[in-house]
Amino acid sequence: MSDAPFTSLAGFRTLLKSLNGPDGAARAAAEARNGQLTKPPGALGRLEDLGIWYAGWRGDARAQVTSPQVIVFAANHGVAARGVSAFPAEVTAQMVANFRAGGAAVNQLARTFGARMDVHSIELERPTADFTTGPAMTEAEVVAALAIGWNAVDPASDLLVAGEMGIGNTTSAAALAHALFGAAPTDWVGRGTGVDDAGLALKARVVGEGLAANPGAAHDPLEALRCLGGRELAAVAGAIARARQLSIPVVLDGFICTSAAAVLERAAPGALDHAVAGHVSAEPGHPRLLAALDKTPLLSLGMRLGEGSGAALAVAVVQAAAACLSGMATFAEAGVSDG
Amino acid sequence: MSDAPFTSLAGFRTLLKSLNGPDGAARAAAEARNGQLTKPPGALGRLEDLGIWYAGWRGDARAQVTSPQVIVFAANHGVAARGVSAFPAEVTAQMVANFRAGGAAVNQLARTFGARMDVHSIELERPTADFTTGPAMTEAEVVAALAIGWNAVDPASDLLVAGEMGIGNTTSAAALAHALFGAAPTDWVGRGTGVDDAGLALKARVVGEGLAANPGAAHDPLEALRCLGGRELAAVAGAIARARQLSIPVVLDGFICTSAAAVLERAAPGALDHAVAGHVSAEPGHPRLLAALDKTPLLSLGMRLGEGSGAALAVAVVQAAAACLSGMATFAEAGVSDG
Repeated sequence: MSDAPFTSLAGFRTLLKSLNGPDGAARAAAEARNGQLTKPPGALGRLEDLGIWYAGWRGDARAQVTSPQVIVFAANHGVAARGVSAFPAEVTAQMVANFRAGGAAVNQLARTFGARMDVHSIELERPTADFTTGPAMTEAEVVAALAIGWNAVDPASDLLVAGEMGIGNTTSAAALAHALFGAAPTDWVGRGTGVDDAGLALKARVVGEGLAANPGAAHDPLEALRCLGGRELAAVAGAIARARQLSIPVVLDGFICTSAAAVLERAAPGALDHAVAGHVSAEPGHPRLLAALDKTPLLSLGMRLGEGSGAALAVAVVQAAAACLSGMATFAEAGVSDG
Repeated sequence: MSDAPFTSLAGFRTLLKSLNGPDGAARAAAEARNGQLTKPPGALGRLEDLGIWYAGWRGDARAQVTSPQVIVFAANHGVAARGVSAFPAEVTAQMVANFRAGGAAVNQLARTFGARMDVHSIELERPTADFTTGPAMTEAEVVAALAIGWNAVDPASDLLVAGEMGIGNTTSAAALAHALFGAAPTDWVGRGTGVDDAGLALKARVVGEGLAANPGAAHDPLEALRCLGGRELAAVAGAIARARQLSIPVVLDGFICTSAAAVLERAAPGALDHAVAGHVSAEPGHPRLLAALDKTPLLSLGMRLGEGSGAALAVAVVQAAAACLSGMATFAEAGVSDG
């Protein structure tokens, strides 16, 4: 059913163990160029490191962001039946229609910054199993979802945002984070789309039950993805891995996207070196997750929508960084005294 | 020499006392619309308030940012002769040429986000007087500079960034902030383009001398602008005032831009209600200045270049906020259950 170069979790794991790195020569050239641009050293702050990072991964000291791609993966979760969301499960399908009609927040953001947007609705009529009673997915199911993500990345794009939609998926993401990084279930759950205090307590309980029902999840990141994740989370992970293979830098979105991405980093340290944290979400588990991954967010605007929305906005920051590094004149070119 | 409706500081002061407000009906309509959009309440975080604020000032609940204008004002400072900058004064003129040739950071940022960019070089061959020996400008000089800023704003634009370039101007801005808000000179000075510890101590000393030599500056914000500011700072203030009259929202840049803008707020409280802080600079006086103005920055990326660069990047955030509020579907339009 796919062109992905893996047909099992073991195959995907092998692939993660032999990832490509950035282009050292391009990175060095970008660093040298940055030092000659018409500005005091360091005056563009984080844009400087960001531009150099982008250039290294693109293999071009003057790379620009001209073809960003935003992909939204949608799926349904068996655990939603536990009442962990403020919205009913049918909203997943309704929002897929909204994405396709161009009416969601991420559509406006993608359009504003010139990104191509794709929507992959993954078997909405077939939610994952409720992970409090056993694994959310079979191996075939999680591998199929990884492959959907893998195949969704446009090789001609030059920056990737992998967003998600799935009623119940902050609970799935919290369970995944709990399995990957320990701590307490209450450290990872938040109000998601807007549950009340009772809903929040329920989410923590469900997360604890999830790990209890799937003890293997704590010992293997890919098994955690299979047992506690969802199809859209697996697709996000698959897309981010494929972007690495294609040397396409990634902007991570919020809590759910980052928890899916964290599976890769825990399975193969360094697997997220081509990814930058686009923003820090208001979902309280997100700053904890970013700290665990040693990622500093570009934006902090209190967003907590998912869909790839925070990352789609952060695309603008990467575009800006690449534009400065690529387009600015050097002191010599501009005839400016360099202090 | 100008179409500005003032020919004296008293005239400018009178104008500041009768400023227009936002459009209450448009703002209310924007708030109502925001509450119906296909997202959980508050899930776009700060973008929601930002979009509503923008709509209110534009008088249109579905206003979009289509014609932003970035203006860079450049001037020279007598105080530069005191050795307060890491760069020689001729860099101001060299950078003006760089702006005109499209080679500076702000050019790349303006281009990336579709902003028109204008450069106003203000009598570079005639630096202001050294403010440690008396007023930097005569009344005629500061009024002329205010008018240059006033006249530079394109009435057809829909978002303004007023940037600046002027070797020595972080010292001028620090003196201005010290006169407007008190505290100690050391609280307002920073390394600017990159002075060493001795240079930093010199800047603080020069700031103290400036206020000692111009005692009237502590009692009147417009007098502070005349005595301690520079032509480009006055032009920034004039442009921001003009934008208010035209109902064009403003994105403030870093320390220097914000100190010039603060003159307006101190002269007429509320005069910066149409302005948002684009970013917080690495220049240490900037967070203090933003706190004094009760402005929370949109971005915090360690930038400290001036030129309007941080604000030009923050234009993207305002564009995003307006695009979401304007373009998203409502629950009813999209057929999405609203929880």
